[in-house]
Amino acid sequence: MKSIIIASTSTLHGGNYLEYLLPVLETHFKNRKNVIFIPYARPGGISHDEYTKKAAEAFDSININLRGLHEFENPEEAIQNAEGFFTGGGNTFLLVTQLYKHKIMQALAEKVKSGTPYLGTSAGSNICGLSMQTTNDMPIIYPPSFQTLGLISFNLNPHYLDPDTNSQHMGETRETRIKEFHAFNSIPVLGLREGSWLEVKGEKITLKGNLKARLFKQNETPVELESESDLSNLK
Amino acid sequence: MKSIIIASTSTLHGGNYLEYLLPVLETHFKNRKNVIFIPYARPGGISHDEYTKKAAEAFDSININLRGLHEFENPEEAIQNAEGFFTGGGNTFLLVTQLYKHKIMQALAEKVKSGTPYLGTSAGSNICGLSMQTTNDMPIIYPPSFQTLGLISFNLNPHYLDPDTNSQHMGETRETRIKEFHAFNSIPVLGLREGSWLEVKGEKITLKGNLKARLFKQNETPVELESESDLSNLK
Repeated sequence: MKSIIIASTSTLHGGNYLEYLLPVLETHFKNRKNVIFIPYARPGGISHDEYTKKAAEAFDSININLRGLHEFENPEEAIQNAEGFFTGGGNTFLLVTQLYKHKIMQALAEKVKSGTPYLGTSAGSNICGLSMQTTNDMPIIYPPSFQTLGLISFNLNPHYLDPDTNSQHMGETRETRIKEFHAFNSIPVLGLREGSWLEVKGEKITLKGNLKARLFKQNETPVELESESDLSNLK
Repeated sequence: MKSIIIASTSTLHGGNYLEYLLPVLETHFKNRKNVIFIPYARPGGISHDEYTKKAAEAFDSININLRGLHEFENPEEAIQNAEGFFTGGGNTFLLVTQLYKHKIMQALAEKVKSGTPYLGTSAGSNICGLSMQTTNDMPIIYPPSFQTLGLISFNLNPHYLDPDTNSQHMGETRETRIKEFHAFNSIPVLGLREGSWLEVKGEKITLKGNLKARLFKQNETPVELESESDLSNLK
């Protein structure tokens, strides 16, 4: 039975890393002692070791041992043997490129679909959808494909931002960008605001957190979804 | 001798389409009666015909006849015979995909390098750089390559936005995104604010408009460049 947390962001303004999610994660990873951290989205600034250390400190507070996937000689084998996963944020183009390069996109998808608990934040959430095509990230590297894990039957837009009605900037709003996506793709897109997450339990998908989310479907007016909305049939 | 205008945006807040640029374009396209408009970046909303009509109305006011590239049976031939080009904004992933699909990326680059005047705004400016990897656009379609026209030896970030110091949003700022690009690429990136443009005359590249631009180089602190700065040696 699938067990997945798909969070808009790792960190809320003024909060510590993963702080707002820790009570949820304690239940989510219950009885799991060792979880694998996938640091590949990080495009520098800090190393994979440092990024893993930061995530491990948060997990340590709920008595879980986190180890970076980059520490394993055979990443595919590490995935097959894993008790749980956390994929952190960064750049989605880089994350997807690395998952293909290490030939683990499919292995990770299968392992999570078979019931191993997964947590994604930001870029780590983007890859839970059918494709990474509704990311906000800059194309700093050319991935072999935009296809991602397909753990759910729609796409995500993490860090969803409402249009700033006072702005004089002429660049596209997030809503306009998602509308552009729907000019060529029929996949629904869920705009997840910072502080929202999806809980996937088997085939049941529920919107969690205190905020509404914004759902975009091709050729339809976007709608606001209340917290606790059931998204199980969205596709 | 190259003759290129690379503008951050087509439209300033409160202004009409191309309005602020018209005096510049009158000189830029002097003695050119017919200019080809490349509408390919437009991801819907309006058709290529409608988009061309909008651009043609602006060009009509400076007595130039604009015709959409999509109207020609053989786009490569149309490019070979063109007296001038204007590539409008929209989605850069789409524009680049279309240029490769119609097999005109190279033909367009060669024609502009040989001296045919070119105007780009937004996505049409992005493609003037070495790659489209510093676009702000959403990856709504998978292009065969991120390589672009290479009319200048650096990359652009049009619609450059300064960080909003009051924001509580945890998504990456534009500056952070460009820094991520420089984790993997050594190409300099010029952040062009709305109202700025580059004038390329032969090998001379000059920053125009009233605003400063922000220059990002790998492993260096970004710097602000005054209007009229000479960028001829930037690479």
